[in-house]
Amino acid sequence: MQQEADKQSKLGVLGGGQLGRMLIQAGMNLNLHTKVLDPDAEAPCRDLASEFVVGSLTDYKTVIEFGQDVDTLTIEIENVNTDALMDLQKQGVKVYPQPEIIRMIQDKRTQKLFFREHNIPTSEFFLTSNKEELQDFIQFLPAVHKIGKGGYDGKGVIKLSSEEDFDKAFDAPSVLEKLVDIEKEISIIIARTIKGEVKAYPAVELVYHDANLVDYLLGPAAISNEVAEEAERIATDLVNEMEFVGLLAVELFVTKSGKVLVNEIAPRTHNSGHQTIEANYTSQFEQHLRAVLELPLGSTQLRTPSAMVNVLGEEGYTGMAHYEGLSEVLGKEGVYIHLYGKKITKPNRKMGHVTIIDENKEQLLEKVDFVKKTLKVISLEDQDADTTEEVTEDDE
Amino acid sequence: MQQEADKQSKLGVLGGGQLGRMLIQAGMNLNLHTKVLDPDAEAPCRDLASEFVVGSLTDYKTVIEFGQDVDTLTIEIENVNTDALMDLQKQGVKVYPQPEIIRMIQDKRTQKLFFREHNIPTSEFFLTSNKEELQDFIQFLPAVHKIGKGGYDGKGVIKLSSEEDFDKAFDAPSVLEKLVDIEKEISIIIARTIKGEVKAYPAVELVYHDANLVDYLLGPAAISNEVAEEAERIATDLVNEMEFVGLLAVELFVTKSGKVLVNEIAPRTHNSGHQTIEANYTSQFEQHLRAVLELPLGSTQLRTPSAMVNVLGEEGYTGMAHYEGLSEVLGKEGVYIHLYGKKITKPNRKMGHVTIIDENKEQLLEKVDFVKKTLKVISLEDQDADTTEEVTEDDE
Repeated sequence: MQQEADKQSKLGVLGGGQLGRMLIQAGMNLNLHTKVLDPDAEAPCRDLASEFVVGSLTDYKTVIEFGQDVDTLTIEIENVNTDALMDLQKQGVKVYPQPEIIRMIQDKRTQKLFFREHNIPTSEFFLTSNKEELQDFIQFLPAVHKIGKGGYDGKGVIKLSSEEDFDKAFDAPSVLEKLVDIEKEISIIIARTIKGEVKAYPAVELVYHDANLVDYLLGPAAISNEVAEEAERIATDLVNEMEFVGLLAVELFVTKSGKVLVNEIAPRTHNSGHQTIEANYTSQFEQHLRAVLELPLGSTQLRTPSAMVNVLGEEGYTGMAHYEGLSEVLGKEGVYIHLYGKKITKPNRKMGHVTIIDENKEQLLEKVDFVKKTLKVISLEDQDADTTEEVTEDDE
Repeated sequence: MQQEADKQSKLGVLGGGQLGRMLIQAGMNLNLHTKVLDPDAEAPCRDLASEFVVGSLTDYKTVIEFGQDVDTLTIEIENVNTDALMDLQKQGVKVYPQPEIIRMIQDKRTQKLFFREHNIPTSEFFLTSNKEELQDFIQFLPAVHKIGKGGYDGKGVIKLSSEEDFDKAFDAPSVLEKLVDIEKEISIIIARTIKGEVKAYPAVELVYHDANLVDYLLGPAAISNEVAEEAERIATDLVNEMEFVGLLAVELFVTKSGKVLVNEIAPRTHNSGHQTIEANYTSQFEQHLRAVLELPLGSTQLRTPSAMVNVLGEEGYTGMAHYEGLSEVLGKEGVYIHLYGKKITKPNRKMGHVTIIDENKEQLLEKVDFVKKTLKVISLEDQDADTTEEVTEDDE
């Protein structure tokens, strides 16, 4: 049975961060009833969700109870209790993406094994169970060492150049990936419905700075048609091989020799898709809703070239957020500010993002510079780190 | 003092209908705290406003109490108690648009006198106080007879062709306007800030059907550059002459002889500006916020040609709203559905709108036809007219 948004069907969302917030915003125009679970009573979704429940996403009983009265259940963060999702699915709740796929993606080790098994191009790798085992792979260095579960926003990933770096390595099940000669990092957001309809967004390009948080994104990515087609083919293979239902973010490397390799995937909306709100016909958030509500997918076509800048808490400030330069940034044409309703700023906390659209690339990049220079999140108070607002962000 | 959105300043809004709802949606990305007053506990803003108060918009004491703790107060409907607004202004609340302008616009008679006094081109007219006085103006017929206060959505307006029509006339202070030979009806949305910054949107064209509710809107209007410039000049004169702060909707006639005349104005966001959400760089709702929060105005530039269709309750159905054809309409590219969260449908009730964008005009109009044919608001229940949800819509 197709479940139409007009029936006031209830959508449950595990996670109440900014991704959930923007998902709710996209659902408002369909009169969608949303019920959100998050451990943080001050999470960005708190005031926007039709119903907001405070509780653990990883606790079996909490998730089961939360999901009892929803028609469809989805996620905005992958660190959730998948046993509960499987049991809810057995009880008749539609769970998209499917729990077994979320479980596979939760662990970077099973992700990598899936790629290998299904001929999805990815970097060479070995799995390790603990720090000691790394000794067996000295010949494999330099490599990237990634913890299997629980890493986010650059945490849980280190580079191992030589044996000396083993001190810093994780003493936990991990992946050791051959260091790739990266020309560009790109990302493709792709959606698939239960009927097998698939639509991919044009690839965007990620430009990183030192702290390993995304500095800005450029859409469309400056890549050849061949690379663009190969990336889309890989993303399409991925969702089809998984029989995925929902929205999948696919982070890819373009190597200096022109190969396209999957880095990581996330079974949800993604930081690299934020600019679709203004730059594409359909936003990634509406597309996610369409996919999980069994509606037709929307056009992913580009309307205007764009860039996206994360608005991060400035170093040295913790406390009630104050936004400097908002007015100046709003004075520029084609600049869209999205604040996430977070009360407390902390160094590098994602407080919002800014999308910039411009047909002219030079002007686009000038505005990126202006926004990054001008918009600052600080705190005017001299306040100790807040302990009530939990930071469990996962939308890298 | 400039009041920045980042200070969690509180915006009060009189009226909680769809215009208020879309205003709140535009404010979410600025972390704006909104407090809304509406007589209807089920008004479209009920779940989206940070604070929602049920009460009369025309009661002095209710409005005064409501406005005590807001920094800025604005409206989404003009039928409000302006005495209360004036007193709140004296108490230091910023009230935009200014109460005396709202009062002038509330009455179509004082609107017309303002146009005459400030050389704003408009149709010839006389003011009448009651039905009897119409007898003096038989020579002036055919004319349009408009009640001074309280008309909306085509109500309060009738055509008087001859003396025989006087039966149907309003026995209340009214305007009698010379019938104009209309070539086109167009609308311009224009904003002005306290600093005197003015920005107008490109004119859109209104296509009416019999019931005198807007059938669809086309943007930009198919008018000559001369007419477009003249319309923008008139709109600009209007806001400057009034020293208006906020967003003004200006409905104009283009006559068969090529003259541009002001029909009516509204001191708020307007049905004829809905397509700016997708079709222009800045939506009318964000522009309204920018104007009343003393931020720089956004670009009004067109991104894509568009059409807008109101989604009205079907004749013959009153009860819990059910939307037919949602899925089919979502299957078309560049089609944006906006439902207003109204539970109860009634014949011709505005339940939502659909914006369609397309570079190709022929395809645009085909999609308009498709949407109008396909999307229907009915009720599956056999229910008597609902009496709890008040219908006081005023966004014509």
